[in-house]
Amino acid sequence: AQAQSTVTVFGVMDAAVRQTSNTGVATNRSVASGSNSTSRLGFRGTEDLGGGLAASFHLEHGLLLDSGTAASSTQFWDRRATVSLSSKTLGEVRLGRDFVPTYVNWGRYDPFSYVGVASSSILVANSQTGPIRAAFSTNPNTTVRANSGVQYLLPNDLGGLEGGVMLAPTGGGTLANGANKVIGARLGWANKTFGVAAAATTTENSLTTAGKFKDVNVGGFYDFSVVRLTAAWRRFDYDTSTQTNWLVGATMPLGSGTLKFSWNQASLEGKVGTTTLPDNGARVLGLGYVYDFSKRTAAYATVSQVSNDSKSTFVAPGGTSGMAAGGSSRGLEFGVRHNF
Amino acid sequence: AQAQSTVTVFGVMDAAVRQTSNTGVATNRSVASGSNSTSRLGFRGTEDLGGGLAASFHLEHGLLLDSGTAASSTQFWDRRATVSLSSKTLGEVRLGRDFVPTYVNWGRYDPFSYVGVASSSILVANSQTGPIRAAFSTNPNTTVRANSGVQYLLPNDLGGLEGGVMLAPTGGGTLANGANKVIGARLGWANKTFGVAAAATTTENSLTTAGKFKDVNVGGFYDFSVVRLTAAWRRFDYDTSTQTNWLVGATMPLGSGTLKFSWNQASLEGKVGTTTLPDNGARVLGLGYVYDFSKRTAAYATVSQVSNDSKSTFVAPGGTSGMAAGGSSRGLEFGVRHNF
Amino acid sequence: AQAQSTVTVFGVMDAAVRQTSNTGVATNRSVASGSNSTSRLGFRGTEDLGGGLAASFHLEHGLLLDSGTAASSTQFWDRRATVSLSSKTLGEVRLGRDFVPTYVNWGRYDPFSYVGVASSSILVANSQTGPIRAAFSTNPNTTVRANSGVQYLLPNDLGGLEGGVMLAPTGGGTLANGANKVIGARLGWANKTFGVAAAATTTENSLTTAGKFKDVNVGGFYDFSVVRLTAAWRRFDYDTSTQTNWLVGATMPLGSGTLKFSWNQASLEGKVGTTTLPDNGARVLGLGYVYDFSKRTAAYATVSQVSNDSKSTFVAPGGTSGMAAGGSSRGLEFGVRHNF
Repeated sequence: AQAQSTVTVFGVMDAAVRQTSNTGVATNRSVASGSNSTSRLGFRGTEDLGGGLAASFHLEHGLLLDSGTAASSTQFWDRRATVSLSSKTLGEVRLGRDFVPTYVNWGRYDPFSYVGVASSSILVANSQTGPIRAAFSTNPNTTVRANSGVQYLLPNDLGGLEGGVMLAPTGGGTLANGANKVIGARLGWANKTFGVAAAATTTENSLTTAGKFKDVNVGGFYDFSVVRLTAAWRRFDYDTSTQTNWLVGATMPLGSGTLKFSWNQASLEGKVGTTTLPDNGARVLGLGYVYDFSKRTAAYATVSQVSNDSKSTFVAPGGTSGMAAGGSSRGLEFGVRHNF
Repeated sequence: AQAQSTVTVFGVMDAAVRQTSNTGVATNRSVASGSNSTSRLGFRGTEDLGGGLAASFHLEHGLLLDSGTAASSTQFWDRRATVSLSSKTLGEVRLGRDFVPTYVNWGRYDPFSYVGVASSSILVANSQTGPIRAAFSTNPNTTVRANSGVQYLLPNDLGGLEGGVMLAPTGGGTLANGANKVIGARLGWANKTFGVAAAATTTENSLTTAGKFKDVNVGGFYDFSVVRLTAAWRRFDYDTSTQTNWLVGATMPLGSGTLKFSWNQASLEGKVGTTTLPDNGARVLGLGYVYDFSKRTAAYATVSQVSNDSKSTFVAPGGTSGMAAGGSSRGLEFGVRHNF
Repeated sequence: AQAQSTVTVFGVMDAAVRQTSNTGVATNRSVASGSNSTSRLGFRGTEDLGGGLAASFHLEHGLLLDSGTAASSTQFWDRRATVSLSSKTLGEVRLGRDFVPTYVNWGRYDPFSYVGVASSSILVANSQTGPIRAAFSTNPNTTVRANSGVQYLLPNDLGGLEGGVMLAPTGGGTLANGANKVIGARLGWANKTFGVAAAATTTENSLTTAGKFKDVNVGGFYDFSVVRLTAAWRRFDYDTSTQTNWLVGATMPLGSGTLKFSWNQASLEGKVGTTTLPDNGARVLGLGYVYDFSKRTAAYATVSQVSNDSKSTFVAPGGTSGMAAGGSSRGLEFGVRHNF
């Protein structure tokens, strides 16, 4: 607390009215939080140590604006809690809870930022029988973040080259408390027009007795100015089951805002125990428009449709539970997002 | 996080030493939090969007200064979590958790601000058999706040006219998680000397199978300069039971502070199941003085007496439990309140 | 929220990689939080009321940087939550959760600040049969902090004299919720070169049916410039059991940092129920170096060894559980600490 200027208080406040209709059950209307960008409150700062060295920290709390609750009931600073030493020429060493490399590489290709009714996260559900469910059950999984990360990140000025590695020891804890042994890496190249990157993360915990849970992906973008296209492929493997997700996204400047489109597909193969996985896939179509009142404030509208194979039950968020396998789910939301 | 000036960190830190004596049980001494104004920490900001438009947010956490705990164990931002778009001429649309219209209209007439040993909240206890208990049991009720609110609030410059409406969908959740369907409105007129307003809120949830829980009230104030008088009436209805509360308050500038007086009465009628409610009412007398060290800091003292009808057990906060029906409860507290 | 300058946002972010080896069980590697200084986020402020009077507040939250969780699952502001009125000549009255006088007097003599693998807290474990365990079981104990404190603290300019008293009522609550009746005091004298102080704290709660839990200590320091030496003695008593801890510490400026050494010893006497306590003692040796990048940022390394008597199982933090009685425990950690 030398000088107050060392801390930046930042955040996002995002709320929407939402309607979700799942086949065979009642349509549900709700107020949803974070459908354009997750509602959050954070504290961060950087200290220049001289000679190109810097120390920095980042503490970020996710919250649900509709009810005022923490997004995680056990991890208040669920989004990020890290301290770093970095060098302009040598890169950054970062300790603490953070995104895993495969999520860093996936999230940037989703026009809907992994949130809301058209989110690509719909097809990474732990409710579905498959490799994610088999390796983590309903405990915290490492498809987005990991605790206890030790990361090395490449410096910024490598002519477009970017990437990093993450190691997390289990700390002797249990999966139920978020303890996973994680090894991951990401490597990519990008300029303003074009970029491509690949990442892999493996996880071991008390449930993964049949080997590591593997998560690999590749993605890229090309900005044609009138439209920015993205595409990504991700594969989750555990034991005898595999899940493969595809994502194609497009964003177009339009008026004082941006038109967004995404198509996601998941297909599952192999089996978990005696359950065979084919016919457990699904597809999500999403369309949205974000109207920018300013750089910080926007209103948005999104529609989506989730179509399931005969045995699966992927759904848009916010619906009434109990949809039968093979049903479809439709989401619609109108919201306001304010960054501070 | 464009510029740090967009966020205001604010709060109240209020602690008191308290003694509560309930008939027939041991007197209890404690350190209490928020007896003049609820202890809290908040973050808020407003962005001018031009043309009379603005975006704003408000995030407010209640806390107990005596133990360092969150006021709500499940809703960290229990006091308010909202994002708004507003126009100087058209009014404000606000999304998120906030006060219900009937509380907005009640709280302003209580000289003790609904907190401490003389609070009018003593007579809105969910421990008492009556409409509140019947409609919510001990789950979060909507006598003060509601989750998932969609509000429209009138603009400020309507010559004294003020008000708003609130709609909250259930979101398909359960009462135990705070999910209630709420419809409410408030309308009033006020200048600096005189004001009057009325409000109504109805609530439906998984317990209200016999119809809506209804909450209506009317209140007003008149400022004679030497004394400011307030009066309010509130009625809660559910199924075959009714509770009616009256409040008369007076605040007088005195020396470097304010003398405060309030009288509250609750009377219950009808029945809940086979329990008949008459003889379940109570009265609260409160007297206090707030000494202002500055605009931000004050010391205060409050005394109160709660008198019960033969079957009721309303009590001042902080006492030993187990008072027999018809007993009386006395509270005394000395505290410090600091706003920041 | 008159002016934003009234609030200071402050904190510590500290993370380390750690290895702990306990006799007979697997070595464990983890990422640990707060091994040089507890990771935290706080808000504080002071208002000058004129005439030497001031109002102030302090709200401090402990957190685990490795997982983003609150350090206490029930008390978010676990480190401190207080509001104060103070006079330059008369001293300070402080209400709320804070350190007990005996901890204030102990913590300052531990070169490792009561945290990390060489912390003197290792020998204040509530897992060990003895007075602490007997008086509190595994509930929150008062060896560090107490809820509901009413404190009076001497003013700063008494020519080196320093001290205070703390009273905490039980508030009629239960030990499991942190309710203890506490009476404590501290008195000392210090200048920059030399200081000595003594403190005593007694605690009563629903478990202490055999009399008060007593905690007394004495400590001092002498700064020889090339080395600063500290020594302290602390005794915990309850019913028929006693625990006596000794601490000797040394800190030496070395290069751009500080070399630190500590030796701690605990010995237990008497009995708890039918368990006799001799042969339940232990010793901790700690050695560390803190390299200061700046006043706010440091890297550090610490090694420690815990040696147990034949019946005890004191361990360095972070190890695999299950060490047999009489085993030894070794800790090693490398970390980064950043103050803001």
